[in-house]
Amino acid sequence: MNIILLEKNEVSQDHVLLDDHRAKHIVKVLKSQVGDVLRIGMLDGDVGEGRVESLQPKFPFAVELSVTLTVSPLSSPVIDLLLALPRPIMLKRILSQVTSLGVGRIYIINANRVEKSFWEAGILEPDEYRSHLIQGLEQAVDTRLPDIQIRQRFRPFIEDEFPQIARDYEHLLLAHPDGKGSLAKSMGDAAGRVLYAVGPEGGWVDFEVEKFSQRGMQTFSMGERILKVDTATIAIHSRIMQQFERNGCAG
Amino acid sequence: MNIILLEKNEVSQDHVLLDDHRAKHIVKVLKSQVGDVLRIGMLDGDVGEGRVESLQPKFPFAVELSVTLTVSPLSSPVIDLLLALPRPIMLKRILSQVTSLGVGRIYIINANRVEKSFWEAGILEPDEYRSHLIQGLEQAVDTRLPDIQIRQRFRPFIEDEFPQIARDYEHLLLAHPDGKGSLAKSMGDAAGRVLYAVGPEGGWVDFEVEKFSQRGMQTFSMGERILKVDTATIAIHSRIMQQFERNGCAG
Repeated sequence: MNIILLEKNEVSQDHVLLDDHRAKHIVKVLKSQVGDVLRIGMLDGDVGEGRVESLQPKFPFAVELSVTLTVSPLSSPVIDLLLALPRPIMLKRILSQVTSLGVGRIYIINANRVEKSFWEAGILEPDEYRSHLIQGLEQAVDTRLPDIQIRQRFRPFIEDEFPQIARDYEHLLLAHPDGKGSLAKSMGDAAGRVLYAVGPEGGWVDFEVEKFSQRGMQTFSMGERILKVDTATIAIHSRIMQQFERNGCAG
Repeated sequence: MNIILLEKNEVSQDHVLLDDHRAKHIVKVLKSQVGDVLRIGMLDGDVGEGRVESLQPKFPFAVELSVTLTVSPLSSPVIDLLLALPRPIMLKRILSQVTSLGVGRIYIINANRVEKSFWEAGILEPDEYRSHLIQGLEQAVDTRLPDIQIRQRFRPFIEDEFPQIARDYEHLLLAHPDGKGSLAKSMGDAAGRVLYAVGPEGGWVDFEVEKFSQRGMQTFSMGERILKVDTATIAIHSRIMQQFERNGCAG
């Protein structure tokens, strides 16, 4: 936890009283004392400082902070993810990891090779997935919660909704073993918003690739190695970030 | 499991009898029948085919294969990792993930911010970590086991051993928040072997960065966001791969 994040409704007259895992973190990990100043952020708001005004150092832990939030958060991410619903335990990790890397919106959709039972997972409830997004923000010192969109039916999503979504992006990229060329080649000049799609274990079926391709998705390959969904997602995300970082040509 | 991997001593006269998790995988996941042909590889050897000669489809599962291994494995990775020992559960995941991405050698070393208790973890035993490396190979359809080197004392490693190690590399890269420039800039023209270093949660201390810098390690930054060790490792590894993939200049 590299920043303590607050909910808007927790703060009253620039004061907040914490009595959950954040209080425990302040006491046990940061070993803070009254008077110490901590890095604080408001979810979907600014970042700044919190001064420890009082503190209960034994269980049940409690910390009172006075907060001053005047600094804008990190710039808004320009990368969005379209993810075929993976195994719940993997989804949790992916949510916090891509949030730490910086993601604006995550579409979680169905695909032929998604196991039906995954759709019953508790992680698809807002209260559940939100905590994993917050973990990612706490890690990366960010405050912007990614927007999560869940679509359990592939066909209405791709046929009715996707054409509208696609207009928001300069780059629509689909990871696929038979993809044409590398990610760097597909992106070319790297300006503009990116939506990248990662399929289920076993990959997208032909029908799905065809539907995406018809609607502007460009396939690309990550090479000969078959990667797990979590590894692939982080690998693609960071390659896109690298494309954005490049100014002109290295070497 | 995208390939069934065999140990050299398991195969006799081109036949192998499996009765462990691989047999279960062949029966339950692949749902193979007698006569089916599967993708097989020899650890640190070639890949090829295995024909199911007989099969016990109920517990205890058993599968007999006749194997023909004539194809060279994926080309040998040119990326090595130097990793400050992370939390054991994270190390397991990193080992299989970087192995699936392709890594030649992994140095696991001590650092000031490594928790001492991590050194007692079972995962540091060859029998333990080997299984996680194999998981990565099974995922990526590779056969080359990465070489693992474990050094529990930082100072003798960096002072006595590292100067010799450094000679094997064209690029020595150290991820550090205060690093000079991006990874792409640090690598420049991307030919030659790379060793990249990832510190513990909380980062390398100044003394360590100084020691590495004196011995040729170039610091680079991954940007403003603070990443967990596992996310950072995959992110850096895949950025290096992307640098290698680039032929000339995109855009």
